[in-house]
Amino acid sequence: MKRIVILGTGNVATRLAKALHKTAYEIVQIYGRTPASTRKLAKQVDAKACSDLQKIEVADLYVVAVKDDAISSLAKELKHLKTIAPKAIIVHNSGSVASTALKVTGLAYGVLYPLQSLKKQVAIDFFHVPFAVTGDTPKTRKSLHELARNLSKKTFVISDEQRMALHIAAIFANNFTHYMLVQAQQLCKEHKLQWDLLYPLIEHTFKQAKQTDLALLQTGPASRKDTQTLKAHSAFLKQNNKAQEKVYRLISEMIAANN
Amino acid sequence: MKRIVILGTGNVATRLAKALHKTAYEIVQIYGRTPASTRKLAKQVDAKACSDLQKIEVADLYVVAVKDDAISSLAKELKHLKTIAPKAIIVHNSGSVASTALKVTGLAYGVLYPLQSLKKQVAIDFFHVPFAVTGDTPKTRKSLHELARNLSKKTFVISDEQRMALHIAAIFANNFTHYMLVQAQQLCKEHKLQWDLLYPLIEHTFKQAKQTDLALLQTGPASRKDTQTLKAHSAFLKQNNKAQEKVYRLISEMIAANN
Repeated sequence: MKRIVILGTGNVATRLAKALHKTAYEIVQIYGRTPASTRKLAKQVDAKACSDLQKIEVADLYVVAVKDDAISSLAKELKHLKTIAPKAIIVHNSGSVASTALKVTGLAYGVLYPLQSLKKQVAIDFFHVPFAVTGDTPKTRKSLHELARNLSKKTFVISDEQRMALHIAAIFANNFTHYMLVQAQQLCKEHKLQWDLLYPLIEHTFKQAKQTDLALLQTGPASRKDTQTLKAHSAFLKQNNKAQEKVYRLISEMIAANN
Repeated sequence: MKRIVILGTGNVATRLAKALHKTAYEIVQIYGRTPASTRKLAKQVDAKACSDLQKIEVADLYVVAVKDDAISSLAKELKHLKTIAPKAIIVHNSGSVASTALKVTGLAYGVLYPLQSLKKQVAIDFFHVPFAVTGDTPKTRKSLHELARNLSKKTFVISDEQRMALHIAAIFANNFTHYMLVQAQQLCKEHKLQWDLLYPLIEHTFKQAKQTDLALLQTGPASRKDTQTLKAHSAFLKQNNKAQEKVYRLISEMIAANN
């Protein structure tokens, strides 16, 4: 497996193309609907630019690096690849779209899922980014796993279901913790409190995150069912920010129910 | 202000007594309802043990280090202190009880609030623990602030309202982020995924926490209003864990509404 075609010019397509460009794999083409951005990325990775699906060239690997909701429809337009490259593998990079969305192409199919938010503009060293591999057969998995190992030191093979669970876990661990920090920061701003007062507590939480049984380490008024404090906090939040109060109440209920 | 009486033998009373014992302040008495645990703590800080409110001695500072819901009722039983120590200050250590709960004693009153979960059994260096001071008059605030500076390098004077906001912010930043990590870990366990796969993402979130405008840095399917992914995740969670699905949906709605 040597020759790669990347379909897409967005965040994942850009970061992946640049990372693969540094390996022994060859990026032969970048496909994109917008000629200008396609040419730009193609030039950066010494590849040809292509904006016509019918002109996609023979390759060993096709990477469908487009938005989740565009994967299925694009796959349906790629049935001709089977005739020019019958032994190729086709993959996408989504955490939540099943690999089987690519089955319609008739090619061997799978997923290369980097567990990190990627931004077109932000350089990233994939070496420390966990890379999940899914494939339709042991042979596909082996090829994709080998490629992943050229990008990252942390690669692993999982099923579609496991990748979905991993994506949701990542949302809880990253997006939702971030949301809670946003609420804390907003409260500090509204009440003229320095944000750095909370650094020691945030650091404590973060350090503790590596423990294997976090459920046992839950603290706070909800976990000790301190109803008086919970009520006082709800009343306080209701005056200023009803949405925040709703979140406070629901999460407190959930914590109390688990303790 | 030299002589201190501590009322309570729990987590905060124990940690505070031990920390104050190392300063130039003198702990003259520990009051507690249970004679055995009171004697134990008193001995550790070279103080007398006392289990009779009428036998509390003259001091410059009375520290009501009891549970939040016991502060008000205990304060009402301390009206006699005014006659033996009219110039004393009385404080509690709660984040969410107003300092005015102590007004009934007739003494000058305030709050010494350490912004950290304290555990009786876990030694702590208060030096890095932010210490919030509240007081009824500039004179009270000055005395309490001076004491706090003997314990911590990070001390500050705030109002009852600010302390309440700070406590709630701490719950969002600590307890609620922890809860989200618990959910992520649970998903990993259920689907046989290694927990350390998420370390890079968790580290990223916490490193980013020091930014001053976190609301602008929210990412994930909810913030980009990726309805297809949100629906797929809800459907997936509903099969296994309805409570988790409820949290996923509410937090996603909140994030989407802010973006």
